[in-house]
Amino acid sequence: MEFDIQRPDPAIRPALQAKIDDLTKPKGSLGRLEELALQVGLIQQTLSPELRHPQNIVFAADHGIVDEGVSIAPKEVTWQQVCHFTHPHGTGGVNFLCRQHGFTLKVVDAGVDYDLPRDRGIIDLKVGRGTRNFLHGPAMTEAEMEQCLAGGASVVRQCFEEGSNVLSFGEMGIGNTSPSSIWMSYFTGIPLAECVGAGSGLDSAGIRHKYEVLSRAMANYRGDGSPRDLIRWFGGFEMVMAVGAMLQAASLRMVILVDGFIMTNCMLAASRLYPEVLDYAVFGHCGDESGHKKVLDALGAKPLLSLGLRLGEGTGAICAYPILDSAIRMINQMDTFSGADITKYF
Amino acid sequence: MEFDIQRPDPAIRPALQAKIDDLTKPKGSLGRLEELALQVGLIQQTLSPELRHPQNIVFAADHGIVDEGVSIAPKEVTWQQVCHFTHPHGTGGVNFLCRQHGFTLKVVDAGVDYDLPRDRGIIDLKVGRGTRNFLHGPAMTEAEMEQCLAGGASVVRQCFEEGSNVLSFGEMGIGNTSPSSIWMSYFTGIPLAECVGAGSGLDSAGIRHKYEVLSRAMANYRGDGSPRDLIRWFGGFEMVMAVGAMLQAASLRMVILVDGFIMTNCMLAASRLYPEVLDYAVFGHCGDESGHKKVLDALGAKPLLSLGLRLGEGTGAICAYPILDSAIRMINQMDTFSGADITKYF
Repeated sequence: MEFDIQRPDPAIRPALQAKIDDLTKPKGSLGRLEELALQVGLIQQTLSPELRHPQNIVFAADHGIVDEGVSIAPKEVTWQQVCHFTHPHGTGGVNFLCRQHGFTLKVVDAGVDYDLPRDRGIIDLKVGRGTRNFLHGPAMTEAEMEQCLAGGASVVRQCFEEGSNVLSFGEMGIGNTSPSSIWMSYFTGIPLAECVGAGSGLDSAGIRHKYEVLSRAMANYRGDGSPRDLIRWFGGFEMVMAVGAMLQAASLRMVILVDGFIMTNCMLAASRLYPEVLDYAVFGHCGDESGHKKVLDALGAKPLLSLGLRLGEGTGAICAYPILDSAIRMINQMDTFSGADITKYF
Repeated sequence: MEFDIQRPDPAIRPALQAKIDDLTKPKGSLGRLEELALQVGLIQQTLSPELRHPQNIVFAADHGIVDEGVSIAPKEVTWQQVCHFTHPHGTGGVNFLCRQHGFTLKVVDAGVDYDLPRDRGIIDLKVGRGTRNFLHGPAMTEAEMEQCLAGGASVVRQCFEEGSNVLSFGEMGIGNTSPSSIWMSYFTGIPLAECVGAGSGLDSAGIRHKYEVLSRAMANYRGDGSPRDLIRWFGGFEMVMAVGAMLQAASLRMVILVDGFIMTNCMLAASRLYPEVLDYAVFGHCGDESGHKKVLDALGAKPLLSLGLRLGEGTGAICAYPILDSAIRMINQMDTFSGADITKYF
C-alpha cells in the first residue's frame, strides 16, 4: 500500500510565529506550548488551529516470539485486557484517561490469538491468530503486512470521516517490546543490547534471556534489509497496523500523538518508509522502558512528558493531550500586546 | 503568625499501596501517577482521595529593588497584567489555563504600586505600594510581614470554606526573581551566581548587573540570619503572602500545586519555617529560569512537567493539574486484578 504524505507548506510559518510572539507574555515564555501551536498551525495551515474529536485507537495482537519466553506476562493477558478495555464499565488504564480527556476509544483486533466476544464493539480486522515466531522465519507474509497497513489506514479514515483531526495510538500485545527492540536496533543502528528492556517486568536474568533470543533472531534473518522487509519479518500485526494508521493520519493532515516505547518504534518504522510522517507527530511521553529515551533521541523527538509510565495502550499520549490542548487555547484565546494595552518591553 | 501543620499519619500507607498495586496494570507501570495517588491518599487519609474545586490564587505586588534596574520589564507591567487577568474577557496566560482545567482564579493585590480598579473582583489586601528597596535595608517591616502571612492565610481559608481541597499559587510582580534568587541562595547555600537568571528576558550583561546588585544587597544585610528575618528583609509582599497561603493550606490538609521559580522559592521559605509543609506540595513544573532545577533538587522535589515555561502566574502548576487528576481517577476508577478476571503475573 502506498501513501501520499506532503510536508506542511512552510509559507505560513512567519505569520504563525508573529502571532505567537505578540501574545501578552515575554517572548518564548510559554516554551513548549509555543512550539506546539506552531506545529499544529503548520499542519492545519491556519493561524487559528483547532483540535476536534480526539480518538485513541488501541491495536491488539499476539506474537509468536512469546513461545521463547521473552515476556513475564502470559499470552492470555492480551485477550483478557482487550475484553477489559471494552467492558461496559471501562475500568482499564486507558479507559479513565480517555474519559478524562474526552477521547473516544476504539479497540481493534489486529490479530489476537482468541475468539473475542462480538458484543463489545471491538473492530474486527484480525489478520491471524498471532504472528509466527520470528526466531525461525518471517513473522508475517507480504500479504499479511499489506492487510495490516490497509487495516490501520481504514480505521483512521473512519476517524477522519467522524470529524477527528487528532489521534493517538496504543497497543496491547504481550511480547511486543521484543519486535520493537529489533526494529529500533535495525532502524537506528543502536546495538540490540541497548534496545532491550524489562517489558512488563522481567528481572535481569529475564532480560538477558530476551536479549539472547532476539540476537539469535537477528542472526537468523535472511531478508533483503529494506525497511518494508524488516517491518514484515519482525513486526506484530498490531504494530504494522499502527504504522499504516500513522501514515494514513499524516496523509490526511491529522495530528498524531505518539505514545510509549512500542508506538515510538512504530513511528520510527513509519518514518523509514515516509520521512514526512514525522512532521505530524507529537511525542507524548518518555517512559521507563530501557531504550525509549534513546530511540526518541535518534528521532530528534522531545517528548512532552516523562512520568515513568510503561503501560502502553496509548496512556502516555493521552496524558499529554491537555498540553497540546493548552497550546491551541493559547494561540486562540490569549490577547495581543496591542489589544491589551500592556507595555511591550522586548 | 503561627501555623499548626501536622504530617500526614503514615498508618494508612500500606493499605494505599496495596490498593494501587492491585490495579490492572503491571506493578509500578503508571509511574508518577501511582506516587501522586499515594501522596494525596496520605494527605486526605483515605483510600479514595478526591480533588474538589481547584483554585489558582495570583498574588501581585511591586518591588523596590526594581529601581536598581534588575528587570527588563518596567514596573507598570505589574498593574497592567493584574488588570488584564481580571478583565471580563480573561485573555491572559493564566486565564485560558484556568478555564481549561476548571480552576477558579483569584487575584490578590498584595502590594501593587497603583490604584487598581475596584470593579474587577481583585481581592484588596494591599500592604503598601511596593516594598522598599532592599539594597539599603529591609524590604518590609515586621508588621508588614505579619500582615502578608495573615493575608495569604485568609484567602486560603476562604477557598477552604468554598469547598476547595487543592490550590495552586502564582505571582505577578515585576522584579520578583531577584528576591527569589536571594532566598534561594540563603536557604540552600547555593552560591548566588547560580541562583540568578534572566527573569523575563535580561541579556547576559543584564544578568551580570542583576547579580552585582543582589550581591551588594546580601553584603549589606544586617539582620539575624533567621528564616523569618531573611523572608522579611528580601521578600516581596506577594511572595510572603504566598508563604502564608502555603502554610495555611498545609494546616488545612489541602494539596498545594507549586508553580515556577518564584513559587518554588516561596515553598522553600515556607519549609524553613515549617518543614511539614512539604508533605502537602506537588511540584508542577521545572522552568527555564536558571536555578529552578537547582532549587528543586535542593528540596528533593521531582516536578511533573518540564515544558520550558517561565511565565509565572501559576501557569506551570495549572498545566500539571490534569496529571494529578489522572492519579486520582486511576485509584478510584481502575479495576483490580481480582475484580477483572485478568491473570496476575507478578
